[in-house]
Amino acid sequence: MSRYKELKAKTLKGNAAIPTLGLAMFTFGNLSVFDPDLRAVAIKPSGVSYNELTEEKIVVLDLDGQVLEGILRPSSDTPTHLHLYRAFPGLRSIVHTHSTYATAWAQSGRAIPVYGTTHADHCSVEIPCAPVMRRDRITGEYEKETAYQIIEHFEKLNLDSRHCSMVLIEGHGPFTWGKNPDEALYNAAVLEELARMAMFTEILAGGQKPPLPGYLIDKHFTRKHGPGAYYGQE
Amino acid sequence: MSRYKELKAKTLKGNAAIPTLGLAMFTFGNLSVFDPDLRAVAIKPSGVSYNELTEEKIVVLDLDGQVLEGILRPSSDTPTHLHLYRAFPGLRSIVHTHSTYATAWAQSGRAIPVYGTTHADHCSVEIPCAPVMRRDRITGEYEKETAYQIIEHFEKLNLDSRHCSMVLIEGHGPFTWGKNPDEALYNAAVLEELARMAMFTEILAGGQKPPLPGYLIDKHFTRKHGPGAYYGQE
Amino acid sequence: MSRYKELKAKTLKGNAAIPTLGLAMFTFGNLSVFDPDLRAVAIKPSGVSYNELTEEKIVVLDLDGQVLEGILRPSSDTPTHLHLYRAFPGLRSIVHTHSTYATAWAQSGRAIPVYGTTHADHCSVEIPCAPVMRRDRITGEYEKETAYQIIEHFEKLNLDSRHCSMVLIEGHGPFTWGKNPDEALYNAAVLEELARMAMFTEILAGGQKPPLPGYLIDKHFTRKHGPGAYYGQE
Amino acid sequence: MSRYKELKAKTLKGNAAIPTLGLAMFTFGNLSVFDPDLRAVAIKPSGVSYNELTEEKIVVLDLDGQVLEGILRPSSDTPTHLHLYRAFPGLRSIVHTHSTYATAWAQSGRAIPVYGTTHADHCSVEIPCAPVMRRDRITGEYEKETAYQIIEHFEKLNLDSRHCSMVLIEGHGPFTWGKNPDEALYNAAVLEELARMAMFTEILAGGQKPPLPGYLIDKHFTRKHGPGAYYGQE
Repeated sequence: MSRYKELKAKTLKGNAAIPTLGLAMFTFGNLSVFDPDLRAVAIKPSGVSYNELTEEKIVVLDLDGQVLEGILRPSSDTPTHLHLYRAFPGLRSIVHTHSTYATAWAQSGRAIPVYGTTHADHCSVEIPCAPVMRRDRITGEYEKETAYQIIEHFEKLNLDSRHCSMVLIEGHGPFTWGKNPDEALYNAAVLEELARMAMFTEILAGGQKPPLPGYLIDKHFTRKHGPGAYYGQE
Repeated sequence: MSRYKELKAKTLKGNAAIPTLGLAMFTFGNLSVFDPDLRAVAIKPSGVSYNELTEEKIVVLDLDGQVLEGILRPSSDTPTHLHLYRAFPGLRSIVHTHSTYATAWAQSGRAIPVYGTTHADHCSVEIPCAPVMRRDRITGEYEKETAYQIIEHFEKLNLDSRHCSMVLIEGHGPFTWGKNPDEALYNAAVLEELARMAMFTEILAGGQKPPLPGYLIDKHFTRKHGPGAYYGQE
Repeated sequence: MSRYKELKAKTLKGNAAIPTLGLAMFTFGNLSVFDPDLRAVAIKPSGVSYNELTEEKIVVLDLDGQVLEGILRPSSDTPTHLHLYRAFPGLRSIVHTHSTYATAWAQSGRAIPVYGTTHADHCSVEIPCAPVMRRDRITGEYEKETAYQIIEHFEKLNLDSRHCSMVLIEGHGPFTWGKNPDEALYNAAVLEELARMAMFTEILAGGQKPPLPGYLIDKHFTRKHGPGAYYGQE
Repeated sequence: MSRYKELKAKTLKGNAAIPTLGLAMFTFGNLSVFDPDLRAVAIKPSGVSYNELTEEKIVVLDLDGQVLEGILRPSSDTPTHLHLYRAFPGLRSIVHTHSTYATAWAQSGRAIPVYGTTHADHCSVEIPCAPVMRRDRITGEYEKETAYQIIEHFEKLNLDSRHCSMVLIEGHGPFTWGKNPDEALYNAAVLEELARMAMFTEILAGGQKPPLPGYLIDKHFTRKHGPGAYYGQE
């Protein structure tokens, strides 16, 4: 039996949840899982529909992109996933979707402001939007450069990937992550809902609205995260 | 057998209806039921998904917040529920959601105008929006202060909680209530639909529109409520 | 066996389709069927949920509003239905809903312009919006006056109820009709879709757009209706 | 057994997918399949609901519009399909829908700009919008002229139907095609999603936004299409 069997099963289950959560149609989107003990990343194969996906079709690679197991071509976005695992500590799963509202914000080139406590419960800052890729970068390895776009934007904003697990790429769409596939998927679904609520808020406010006061953002974020958290059962 | 068994069963059933009615995703939102004879409030535990909820996981408290039964931590919003039961006469169930359109109105900081008879059938005034919490208040007990925000806003507007069973909290989301869980849930679902219709009305009217004339609001509200009501079977 | 059994069965089936088509929640909306041979109109009872509806609960009345069969109170909108059957020749079924987009147009007080062939396939003119009820009228029989609002608006616009089977009432919502319940329901669902498409058209065009040229409206309407029609199988 | 049995089965299956994909209600829309060996086109009959459709009801015609098999009247849009098969090389299936967002763009008379990589993955140019039919043309064969509208617009824009398999007709709705029914349906569903994302992008950007840079459009299109493609498994 493959030593990657459990990793591939988790990856299959995670990918299967993407269309169930309404985050992608047809072959759009992909989810990967990283196992640091196995030094292996499992990911969806390229261009395969979610309803045709099986454990055997999942592709396993090392962090340098060498295929360890699987006969299909991995997702074309694989280099983006691999470089994010290398750069951001503690990431164990990454989800990329073209979910409608998050993609619309990405296409408008705008970060999503913190308009309410639903947002502050999950992220204490704007959902960042990494700028569109420059012409000189695209001649290199495009998907690797996509990871660098994200990493550099986090550096520029002095953001910690453990506190902000959602990002938009201008003109493209969202990436989210977590310490397991469920958390990465949860973040992808919550991001889509935050994006939807924020668009409706701007329609109702007649344009941009001042964000939630900082003391209220901090209160909600620290209710759920950090040493003083009192939300949930842990 | 627990003397709270029936109360917990009602509370479980009511919470299970929240995602079915499309009013919340994952662990968002919560519903409580108050039994004045038992002097007990039953509520959803904190951070538990609706599909993992069982009768055993429901938490029972007295109106002072002392746990009477249950091993899980109650919803972090519990103090808001308890103080509303104490302040507003006749409340037997409260629902809090982050439903999309109602939350967008809350995030825009606006009360929902009475644009049509669908609104007037349920509430003869704007759906009030209690202002965002002030910095000095947040240092106290946050969720208790949330109840005070609602109560003070109702006092300021001279509103009776029996005539208006829906409220928004600026930057946060909606609370609704009723004389049983079905009524509280009905009000949560109707509020979401009123919020959606009102946003579309403003898009079509090119901004705010004058509300429905007062005589028409009164006609529709009194068709369904009060001594001259002739809607329904009672 | 009741002589109204078949009429009540049709009315039950028609009402059951309202929530299935996504046109109403809870107890909102109602459908009636008129049988001229029986001189009887069957209609939904007031305030009863669609999932609680049975054949026995359907109410049968004559055109003057006298109950012929049934123990429940008929829909509070019954006088509107009865007066429309009396005024408009050939009507055999009427549907009233609070469907979201059609109601938003009604709340904005605007007729729906003919922006495309989907509209022209069903109605060769704007979907009319009868003005909000005047104060002096509301002191009379409100629901009867609602019918008069529609009838007078059709007279003013010189519209034939056989060519335009959809109408909005300002501040309220839509009524549609047909020569049987299926046709009335079809018109209610199509109206909701026309209302949705027209709102999105205005968003994309940045405000109102000139309607479709008259020659194209006529072409599409006459493809489906009248002596030269060549759409469908009849 | 009919020599068209397989062709009709494919056409039935393709039409059945239209409502499943959320692209049409009631009798709206139609799908055809062209078999060049049989010199035959199979298409949905006119005005028949998707849930009433059977293999026997599918109509088979030659490219001149002569019925080869079937007793029902073919879709009124049949001449549009036939002339597109004659004009555009390699087309094997065409889908026409009135899907909501694509139709709203058509009704606003606007091509859909390339706002993101989701669009560029499928089409390297704006989704073209052929202008509304002129009065002098409508007196001819309307549905044939509809095909000419598309063909002339592609000529004017110097577009190749193999590179752009989606089009809008002003005031009407979308047509899409492919080398089999699955591909034509895929394009119809993707077009609807592109139309939705593009509308939301304009709402968020406060009007029209500059499209994606050309080098990024080319990169994404050539990732999936042409000799250097590395997306998918082929």
